[in-house]
Amino acid sequence: MQSPASIEKETNTAVAEPPSKHERRLYELWGAIRDLGSVQELLDWDQETHMPSRGAVSRSHVCGTVATLKHRAVTDDELWEVIEACAAEAPEGSLLAAQARVARRDAARARRIPEDLAKAKAIARSRGTMAWQKARAAADFSLFQSELQELLDLAKEEAAALDPDGNPYDALMDRFEPGATEEELVPLFDHLVAELTPMVRAVMDSGKEVDESPVQGFFDVTRQQELAKYAASAFGFDFEAGRLDTAIHPFCVGIAPDDVRLTWRWQEDDLRPALYGVLHEAGHGLYEQGLPADWHRTPLGNAVSLGVHESQSRLFENQVGRSRGFWTWLWPRFAELFPEQAAAGSVDRIWPALHTVKPSLIRVEADEGTYNLHVAIRFQIERALFRGDLQVADLPEAWNDAYGELLGTRPADDSEGVLQDIHWSQAIFGYFPTYTLGTMTSAQLFEAAERDLGPLEEAFAEGEIQPLLGWMREHVHRHGRRYEAGELIERATGEPRSPAALMTYLRRKTEAVYGLS
Amino acid sequence: MQSPASIEKETNTAVAEPPSKHERRLYELWGAIRDLGSVQELLDWDQETHMPSRGAVSRSHVCGTVATLKHRAVTDDELWEVIEACAAEAPEGSLLAAQARVARRDAARARRIPEDLAKAKAIARSRGTMAWQKARAAADFSLFQSELQELLDLAKEEAAALDPDGNPYDALMDRFEPGATEEELVPLFDHLVAELTPMVRAVMDSGKEVDESPVQGFFDVTRQQELAKYAASAFGFDFEAGRLDTAIHPFCVGIAPDDVRLTWRWQEDDLRPALYGVLHEAGHGLYEQGLPADWHRTPLGNAVSLGVHESQSRLFENQVGRSRGFWTWLWPRFAELFPEQAAAGSVDRIWPALHTVKPSLIRVEADEGTYNLHVAIRFQIERALFRGDLQVADLPEAWNDAYGELLGTRPADDSEGVLQDIHWSQAIFGYFPTYTLGTMTSAQLFEAAERDLGPLEEAFAEGEIQPLLGWMREHVHRHGRRYEAGELIERATGEPRSPAALMTYLRRKTEAVYGLS
Repeated sequence: MQSPASIEKETNTAVAEPPSKHERRLYELWGAIRDLGSVQELLDWDQETHMPSRGAVSRSHVCGTVATLKHRAVTDDELWEVIEACAAEAPEGSLLAAQARVARRDAARARRIPEDLAKAKAIARSRGTMAWQKARAAADFSLFQSELQELLDLAKEEAAALDPDGNPYDALMDRFEPGATEEELVPLFDHLVAELTPMVRAVMDSGKEVDESPVQGFFDVTRQQELAKYAASAFGFDFEAGRLDTAIHPFCVGIAPDDVRLTWRWQEDDLRPALYGVLHEAGHGLYEQGLPADWHRTPLGNAVSLGVHESQSRLFENQVGRSRGFWTWLWPRFAELFPEQAAAGSVDRIWPALHTVKPSLIRVEADEGTYNLHVAIRFQIERALFRGDLQVADLPEAWNDAYGELLGTRPADDSEGVLQDIHWSQAIFGYFPTYTLGTMTSAQLFEAAERDLGPLEEAFAEGEIQPLLGWMREHVHRHGRRYEAGELIERATGEPRSPAALMTYLRRKTEAVYGLS
Repeated sequence: MQSPASIEKETNTAVAEPPSKHERRLYELWGAIRDLGSVQELLDWDQETHMPSRGAVSRSHVCGTVATLKHRAVTDDELWEVIEACAAEAPEGSLLAAQARVARRDAARARRIPEDLAKAKAIARSRGTMAWQKARAAADFSLFQSELQELLDLAKEEAAALDPDGNPYDALMDRFEPGATEEELVPLFDHLVAELTPMVRAVMDSGKEVDESPVQGFFDVTRQQELAKYAASAFGFDFEAGRLDTAIHPFCVGIAPDDVRLTWRWQEDDLRPALYGVLHEAGHGLYEQGLPADWHRTPLGNAVSLGVHESQSRLFENQVGRSRGFWTWLWPRFAELFPEQAAAGSVDRIWPALHTVKPSLIRVEADEGTYNLHVAIRFQIERALFRGDLQVADLPEAWNDAYGELLGTRPADDSEGVLQDIHWSQAIFGYFPTYTLGTMTSAQLFEAAERDLGPLEEAFAEGEIQPLLGWMREHVHRHGRRYEAGELIERATGEPRSPAALMTYLRRKTEAVYGLS
């Protein structure tokens, strides 16, 4: 793996030797903010993976205190003055100007949120996660309902504080995807749904079914983990600067570029959920590990947006992990770990089972063909919640109805319905649309990378992921937050964000698997 | 297990409904301090158990920031004023007077330490721990020497800041054992060494050897863990409010009374290191879990001293865990897990192997007969370091010489010599003597508990540890920091801290095993 530090050597000298006392002070103050962010990441990771069940109450106090201190640090008057001073002295287009721009954005946003609200949210979030875990285990939404109500009320309060006259949902999305608005996204989702629904319908109506038996049966958990880590390592994920643990919900936290943690879960009767869960999170992890080390603890040192983050996870999960080339390379190891399945199968038999178009209930395990419909449901439901057209108590029903309508399938209980995602329990509203933005972007970036590098399938078949990773490092990872998400994608691909590449990619696969165009 | 909250219901109402605005504010401010302490505990635990190896550098920044914020919170002028106000309004002998007393002690201590020093120490500590881990794995002190030098220099700076004209070693010990002084402890250690050395010598000279084969051979790691957790649970350790992980060095952190984490390590060829390591840490854990929940996040809510802490770990490890009664109860489970060893052995054959008096190199695995000589060596070496009579570069030699002299055995390399303990790498100097204070106290407390409850051996044979744990909850745990350590022990045992009970206990065991008096 290419070292981000070496790539950045030239452009980042300004950070290594800050030329002014304001800039130096900005990095000192920002360093502490980032450190508290790292603490929050660690607290979250620990709560999801290792914390004893009874530890939840005292943990919620700790989360409240850390959130308060971080909020105080970001809203600190001295920081604001230092940002202004940096902005004033920074030459246009310089790195420092970019540092000041994103620092001001974060500080201005935080300064609109009262400290008590920041703290209340952190406490509600910590309690909410525990309640959600219990409710999910019991498949009983009512065990989470009052916590969710509180989280939603706090989110509305936050949206009102951020933009008293604006659209609350926009104010919340802006945290994850700066600048995103309902106005822009609704037509985009409508367009995607309009294209995807007939495609899915056509597959259903054709009555054609893919043989999924090559990836079903019995897969030993330890061996599944071995295969997944082997593949993630081949992508370039560095397990000396990261790790993999078990959690209810697969996720990735970037405590620092040299401490990036993935989680996974598995099914013994299907290879796909664990393997593609890990490869998805490894894609996130590659972005985190590829962020410029020299900018760590400065405003530019983080990922630019969740949409861009998701483009990396979707790209490594799908464009790489589901490719025939990659499976050609993976096959010998797969055969070692699962000799019975290998004897009965082949890459050609497995490949279609990785490209089904088949309505299902769980988003993170959905196939590529239906994935964005899962996201569209959440987008629609969240918007209704924030418009006030939907009450918390009615969520399970609304969720199940939406699945029935858009995917033609209905959850049997809340654990495979409204309780499947962790986000709301963590006070995360307005995040879901970034999944589809990211999926679109992954297809665009892959197209652009192949334009630059030539077709990659053969390289994948040799286990050579490095050229693609290098391209992502160069065009995405190393820039941190230097450019706005839209600008970054346009610089990388030469075109604005659009669903065209994704639809081309999905149609091609669907044709190959189902013989439908 | 008895709930500490219920025991405390009567005495702690003052905390539940604080009567004055000062008292309320004291708990608010202290809550944040305790939360940052919990973060530090979690960071430490994570660094020792899960953090990826490359994460050390960015982690050291995080530790520095958290230490700075905690230092700022403890030295905050408003806190000082609130403490003074509470002290002024608190009736003599009241709970609030005790809260104000220990809060003032902590604040006064912190106010003498400059913020930069607190931060530098936290950073050095985090880096030092990583360097120590590497040095220990390579059995090469030179890989740790420069970090240790820095840690020692910072400790001397801290001691000078705490008490410019006093004894530096006393100033450092005071952090772990309030009020402890070299003047008091040197004669105590001299006395113990004078009593122990001839006892150990007599055993050596007798040529008698205990048959250790019943606890040696091959013990499957997973089963060792099962046995250890089974025993710790029987003691009353609540694994829903705690956990057990693997680390280089066994330790216990109390993130909160409901989140107490033990670590362990093991040898496949000897049952004792893992089992007694876990039971020792479980003793610490029982104290942490038994601290009054109502006082959590108030000044009184922590353990009173490390010496008292160690009395609990040593008592559950030795007086309970090595007793014939406890083994009688444990035997059926042991036989299930290790049927071969059980077929060849018996409680009567195992018991002597748990009570050897046999010089060895590793303190945490030393037998009871020689344990305090290991501590005496560290006490002597630390004092020499702080007097300036010993240089860091000469430590390995001095360590090996001391082992040769006092225990008649010499480490083959640094990993079983000067690098065996984690303490110095964590900026912990002046802690070791509390191990012997605690060991003395464990024998005193056990004598006192048996005076109150009658002989406990038979209860142990029935697996009834609860009466002893209840006595400790009542006389030790539930008081938190309400009384000074010496006063607490005197209230519990009716006598001042003394080595008499320990020597009686050791002589009795040595006589039983070796037939020597």
